[in-house]
Amino acid sequence: MTNSPDETIGFIGLGLMGRPMATHLHQSGYPLVIYNRSKSVVAELCTLGMTTAASPRDAARQSTIIIVMVSDTAATEDVLLGDEGVVQGLSSGSLVIDMGTTAVAATRRFAQQIGRLGGDYVDAPVSGGQVGAQQAALTIMAGGSDAAFARAKPVFETLGRHVTRVGDVGAGQVAKAANQIIVGLTIGAVAEALTLAKKAGVDPAKVRAAFEGGFAWSRIMELHGQRMIDAEFIPGAKAVTQRKDLAQALVLAEQLGIDLPATRLNRDLYDQLIEQGGGELDHSALVKVIDTEI
Amino acid sequence: MTNSPDETIGFIGLGLMGRPMATHLHQSGYPLVIYNRSKSVVAELCTLGMTTAASPRDAARQSTIIIVMVSDTAATEDVLLGDEGVVQGLSSGSLVIDMGTTAVAATRRFAQQIGRLGGDYVDAPVSGGQVGAQQAALTIMAGGSDAAFARAKPVFETLGRHVTRVGDVGAGQVAKAANQIIVGLTIGAVAEALTLAKKAGVDPAKVRAAFEGGFAWSRIMELHGQRMIDAEFIPGAKAVTQRKDLAQALVLAEQLGIDLPATRLNRDLYDQLIEQGGGELDHSALVKVIDTEI
Repeated sequence: MTNSPDETIGFIGLGLMGRPMATHLHQSGYPLVIYNRSKSVVAELCTLGMTTAASPRDAARQSTIIIVMVSDTAATEDVLLGDEGVVQGLSSGSLVIDMGTTAVAATRRFAQQIGRLGGDYVDAPVSGGQVGAQQAALTIMAGGSDAAFARAKPVFETLGRHVTRVGDVGAGQVAKAANQIIVGLTIGAVAEALTLAKKAGVDPAKVRAAFEGGFAWSRIMELHGQRMIDAEFIPGAKAVTQRKDLAQALVLAEQLGIDLPATRLNRDLYDQLIEQGGGELDHSALVKVIDTEI
Repeated sequence: MTNSPDETIGFIGLGLMGRPMATHLHQSGYPLVIYNRSKSVVAELCTLGMTTAASPRDAARQSTIIIVMVSDTAATEDVLLGDEGVVQGLSSGSLVIDMGTTAVAATRRFAQQIGRLGGDYVDAPVSGGQVGAQQAALTIMAGGSDAAFARAKPVFETLGRHVTRVGDVGAGQVAKAANQIIVGLTIGAVAEALTLAKKAGVDPAKVRAAFEGGFAWSRIMELHGQRMIDAEFIPGAKAVTQRKDLAQALVLAEQLGIDLPATRLNRDLYDQLIEQGGGELDHSALVKVIDTEI
């Protein structure tokens, strides 16, 4: 694995995803300065040799690359532009990388603000969930200049297996929106198909096995089809997060003046799941809206 | 390849799918008696050494295994139960295999009628399209008794790569209905996702490449995502056929008392494509309903 220990990484956001990502970067030789709102995880990671920052500003001050991995657009805005935010401590020449799932319009705005301070910006949202983060097997979809992407690449290669620059700033978030549409809608497709089989008296596990390698096969059928068969919904990725990502994709579609009817329906089905009390379950629990006996 | 040349195969229906399937069976050593409504293809296949039958009845009379591969439930009923149908010529101990996509309730009724005459029945619809038929790489989902499936298996292994007995008579058609739900809805998901990317100014080909191997990856993205990017809709499988299969799946769902909202919407989107004049295009042309500039 290539790395650039002449870069110091400020890592902000140590949740389900951020914590294993920071750990991989530390293990591959990068000096890390970490910040997280909740302090218990910070204390734990410090024992491994990472440095603590008092605020995002403080993390930016001590770093050359700042990675942000927080829950949504509002939290990202606060971390970047808030009173104690990254912009308050950023040095000219630093690189900010947002690896969360953030609205496209906000992403372009954040990049402009960072650019005015002489910083560079890459949006690099990921797919692969907590397991992908733990195994350093994330899919990373990046938007930014060629130069900024080249600088970020050794970091990405420490965290993921499939790293693509899809275009300029914002393009990574566009790809992530597209990714979440496919994930949500394919979960919905698998849910309806396996429920039909089950209600018709045919073993869904045999149907899933029959599909292997054929036109109906997908990573979603492989992983989430099995979860539905087992009715095992401990979250890798939560239904509320999937719902948020679909709503964000629909805002983007509206801004572009296009209608995405299946995405709208899928968001409504996630709303039903959340109303049923399933918001904290894995997003594959969408099957519970179709098959009310699960 | 195992084969059983002590069986003679009557093959009824020599269209896009049936013709290459009959040819593979002939090449692997089975004596073939063929019937097709349109006669030009029959004349052509006879030059390869296959025998012609004057009717489905005639084909049944000369065979021990009768394979039916016609366009829909009504055509299958006519071939099996009509005045010149298979039941008129069937010998006790013969095996009837329906490899088309046929309604589940009708399938069970056909199997009963064949059973009364001492025949056995397997429903074995396929996935993989014309290319899968040509390459003997079909996915085959079979329903029937263990004994009937065991007898049919060498035939299936001549035609496909992934052969599964999913349950008793009708189970193959249930699996096929589930398969078509996933195919139609995943095409719809890929169409919305790639259209969003394109309208947001991001190259859909790069988005597709970024997804490879990740959670948004599927056989549909691999094959039909590329078709959408190329706007290349010469049919492997036609939109009107996909629409018919979805409608059939919805009839089954209604009989079972379950609601499949995303499948309903997907059928409606195929109706829009057909209204736009796209019914004879490949089913991936559904993207033309979402992206009206393609």
